[in-house]
Amino acid sequence: MNDITSLILTRLATDPHFLSGEILSHEFGITRSAVWKHIRLLRNDGYQIEAITGKGYRLGAMTGRPIQAEVQPLLNCQRFGNQLHYHRVATSTNLLAKALAGEGAPEGSIVVADSQSAGRGRMGRTWVSPPDLNLYFSLILRPAVPSIRVPQLTLLVAVAIHRALHALSPELAPMIKWPNDILVNGKKLCGVLCEMQSEPDLTHFVVVGIGINVNQHEMPAELEKIATSLLLESGKQCSRPELLATVLNQFEPLYNEWLLQNDLGFILPYLEKYSMLQSKRVTIDQRNQHVNGIVTGIAPGGELQLQNDDSAIILISSGEANLRKT
Amino acid sequence: MNDITSLILTRLATDPHFLSGEILSHEFGITRSAVWKHIRLLRNDGYQIEAITGKGYRLGAMTGRPIQAEVQPLLNCQRFGNQLHYHRVATSTNLLAKALAGEGAPEGSIVVADSQSAGRGRMGRTWVSPPDLNLYFSLILRPAVPSIRVPQLTLLVAVAIHRALHALSPELAPMIKWPNDILVNGKKLCGVLCEMQSEPDLTHFVVVGIGINVNQHEMPAELEKIATSLLLESGKQCSRPELLATVLNQFEPLYNEWLLQNDLGFILPYLEKYSMLQSKRVTIDQRNQHVNGIVTGIAPGGELQLQNDDSAIILISSGEANLRKT
Repeated sequence: MNDITSLILTRLATDPHFLSGEILSHEFGITRSAVWKHIRLLRNDGYQIEAITGKGYRLGAMTGRPIQAEVQPLLNCQRFGNQLHYHRVATSTNLLAKALAGEGAPEGSIVVADSQSAGRGRMGRTWVSPPDLNLYFSLILRPAVPSIRVPQLTLLVAVAIHRALHALSPELAPMIKWPNDILVNGKKLCGVLCEMQSEPDLTHFVVVGIGINVNQHEMPAELEKIATSLLLESGKQCSRPELLATVLNQFEPLYNEWLLQNDLGFILPYLEKYSMLQSKRVTIDQRNQHVNGIVTGIAPGGELQLQNDDSAIILISSGEANLRKT
Repeated sequence: MNDITSLILTRLATDPHFLSGEILSHEFGITRSAVWKHIRLLRNDGYQIEAITGKGYRLGAMTGRPIQAEVQPLLNCQRFGNQLHYHRVATSTNLLAKALAGEGAPEGSIVVADSQSAGRGRMGRTWVSPPDLNLYFSLILRPAVPSIRVPQLTLLVAVAIHRALHALSPELAPMIKWPNDILVNGKKLCGVLCEMQSEPDLTHFVVVGIGINVNQHEMPAELEKIATSLLLESGKQCSRPELLATVLNQFEPLYNEWLLQNDLGFILPYLEKYSMLQSKRVTIDQRNQHVNGIVTGIAPGGELQLQNDDSAIILISSGEANLRKT
């Protein structure tokens, strides 16, 4: 969809009345036959647009695709989402966002895809990404902080997603699983993968990748017991543009506050309240070792705080946390 | 220089005898007139090669440029330097190395340049890079460690450079200035800039950029009081290929050991012995604040350890350290 087509769609989407070809032609500085061409392109893209002689054009329904024209009117952000790069199919939105960031794309730019051919989770794992159902997007950030603070962003964005889910589906009870997942009824609904390019004192850019299972009506057999979707949990379809916009609307003020702070201290009560691991016995799998303990909280630096079997308090900055059967 | 030219140069460089055109033609599977073409290319590149009818070819002198053919014979490494990408002029070797790493270049690959048009130091500062005198190179690493450990590499590579300098110019007394410089007589001789691409649990790659002032016989007026070169300090020319190879030879075993360890503990005594800031009163300039204290050491995680004015011990993980006049 080219820029003018997208702008015309946005104009139609934000006006409940019929808009005449003359008005659109005037506003966009194009001929009336050019307006008609853009309307046809939109219809080809699945948009239902009424056209009545003497009245003009009116948008019937959106397609529910997370494109700029559908997301932008719902945004309440200063910097996030001003540029939204939409792809029917992407290899992975993080991969495309890293390339854009390397070319200088501004903070707040978004890459979103309807499906991913090479969607990835943490540590090189696959993220199953079927088309047209779920939300896969990446946000480019340029925080002026030492690289050591960047892992905190994973938890911060989990808070934003948690709040967005609460706003849209208050009947759900999602929990945040340190460091980067959101689960509902013990099954994974959402994952976050932050990647960065940095030097020790200076973060060049961060790409925050987010995958949320939205309208997927069944899970592949091998994932059925460990993954779920909003549709499966709430029984109702969810608008992906609305979910995307709500996550960004929740995240921008949290991010701005975090930039002013030295750590996650300001959001720890929220994180600990909704932490799935709080007070649980866990095993942390790291590359060369396992650590056992009871989770006593999350540290301001974003580390998981454990009391180990010797009653010592230790901080875990990375690894995979698994609940232990007691 | 193409691959066969470079291989022929290496062959000549590692044999003190005359090598006949017939032998070279046989060894490289090319015609004798092709051998002659490569010899001419090498002469055009500045290599003095004797050619005596009936005896063959013998290399007179190397050019002292840090190219594969001059560095490789001096290397004693398993992985470092197997691929050496030489440029007469680069924008910055870190920039080229990051691009190569993103394309999958193996660990140990080197980018080296005779001059940089956009050489950079920490935090976006310029690194003055005049041609043909100094050493500017970047090493690609792929350590399987969490990103939080990567800043330790800056200090580790400083140890390797310090040892290399000691091996080549034992009369100098270089000191390591936390976190990333090497100074002689209080003036900067060398800087290290590590950049990485990572996710919290997984480091995708690190580019270790190293700039050493080698044979620069005078410093620009504005740098005269704060920067120096090996030539200015020792009074003698230093071979750049030898220096590059020595740094790599020193660094590879340190790096292998660091991968097996959890931190810098194994090298702390060396770091503290040659730390310019040890026991000094310093001010640390960070983005939003200054921290004052007396340096009591370096922590295993690579942080600078200070005793502040309230006698509390604090760890500094990033920032600029300046000596305070007492």
